[in-house]
Amino acid sequence: MSGIVHLVGAGPGAPDLLSVRAARLLGEADIVFHDALVPEAILALAGKAQKIAVGKRCGRHSTAQRFINKRLADAARRYPVVVRLKGGDPMLFGRAHEEIAFLTSRGIPVQVVPGITAASAASAELGVSLTRRGVSRSVVFATPRAGDGEAPSHWARAVAAADTAVLYMAAHDAASVVQALLGAGVPGRRPVAVVANAALPGRVIAGGRLSDLPRLVAAVTGQPTLILLGDVFAATQALAGEALTPRTASQSA
Amino acid sequence: MSGIVHLVGAGPGAPDLLSVRAARLLGEADIVFHDALVPEAILALAGKAQKIAVGKRCGRHSTAQRFINKRLADAARRYPVVVRLKGGDPMLFGRAHEEIAFLTSRGIPVQVVPGITAASAASAELGVSLTRRGVSRSVVFATPRAGDGEAPSHWARAVAAADTAVLYMAAHDAASVVQALLGAGVPGRRPVAVVANAALPGRVIAGGRLSDLPRLVAAVTGQPTLILLGDVFAATQALAGEALTPRTASQSA
Repeated sequence: MSGIVHLVGAGPGAPDLLSVRAARLLGEADIVFHDALVPEAILALAGKAQKIAVGKRCGRHSTAQRFINKRLADAARRYPVVVRLKGGDPMLFGRAHEEIAFLTSRGIPVQVVPGITAASAASAELGVSLTRRGVSRSVVFATPRAGDGEAPSHWARAVAAADTAVLYMAAHDAASVVQALLGAGVPGRRPVAVVANAALPGRVIAGGRLSDLPRLVAAVTGQPTLILLGDVFAATQALAGEALTPRTASQSA
Repeated sequence: MSGIVHLVGAGPGAPDLLSVRAARLLGEADIVFHDALVPEAILALAGKAQKIAVGKRCGRHSTAQRFINKRLADAARRYPVVVRLKGGDPMLFGRAHEEIAFLTSRGIPVQVVPGITAASAASAELGVSLTRRGVSRSVVFATPRAGDGEAPSHWARAVAAADTAVLYMAAHDAASVVQALLGAGVPGRRPVAVVANAALPGRVIAGGRLSDLPRLVAAVTGQPTLILLGDVFAATQALAGEALTPRTASQSA
């Protein structure tokens, strides 16, 4: 007899951008294992649950994945409703594979509740659609972190081939991101937008060109930041070098 | 004096995969303009609103975009809360740009509420993460529909360069999708998964290889279908040619 582990997307940060299903499951949860970036206002929805931070945060100490896997399995033996809460969507840059593979190999049922990924929230904040007829029919989400044995510029070729790109976990090393993208053939004049703390009160938006990127991200060091590239962002260059909220289209938080 | 037009993501289909914010806005809406694919159970949340179907559906008659734009602007002059409800996320293949540009140029405020895109729901249904350490660090969302003056194989190069790909609005013409991808260098043995009606009761899942695609989609003709490609789907080949629900990880609708 085992409980169910629910891999739940917490969405981009605002509590009301959680799905109705995720909010309900948090209320039912006996125990919640959450990433460091999940805001307190979302954790508060898990009123009766024990809450355990297991999150990795860029540049900080992180609980090893194997240890997280084991704690999830142990919890499923003790509790009916176990929630593993991940920022954004669990299946995009959430290391969900490791947890699903570990748990299902032990006969523990896993259910995945999708979430709103940060790219969608950033696009909403900017008021700029990631796709546009005649301009963008492909959008790539990528991260420049290369693992063992991976070609370091592999991700950059994927970005170069797509009309629009959103880079996750890339802002801490903007100079090498620019270098890799230039090397893959992305022109330095390609429009970029930077969104930090998307869907959160402390959001920062800036726009410019690829070659400006190190300057644009310097203002948001240490905060969760997305880098967006593509011709659809041409109009956001008016925001170059400044931290502004968009004037025409934004979320209603 | 103008009302606000809210461009709201309805998510992949299940009413409880709507965001809390979207559900609240539907309850407040005076008038809702919705796509044909938004299920009745979601529209029912807009209890006091006039509901107007303006949706395009693949292969059916669609209201012209210019006419939709004009109706949204007219509604904003009469009502405080206008909701434009789009399947999935408004900023991914939702033609949001046309509506935002038209409305803001007329001084009508627009707010975008992001939604869960179909790719995230399909990934949750399959129990397969779109990213995976050492296997996939880039995910492209693309559509093979080429507009006037666009190179027809442009999208295929973006798919070939990314580790994982999700194709929207592609299943109606699987044979030419396969041909374009082979031409762009994607091997015919690349694992694929097909998910129709993700997050809805009539969902169908099948897996195989790129060369099998025409056979895999033949079972789901006319239904909203995503095609997913990449090595992360290698394990779903056990589902080849059959319409199955996943055994190990799924949504909890």
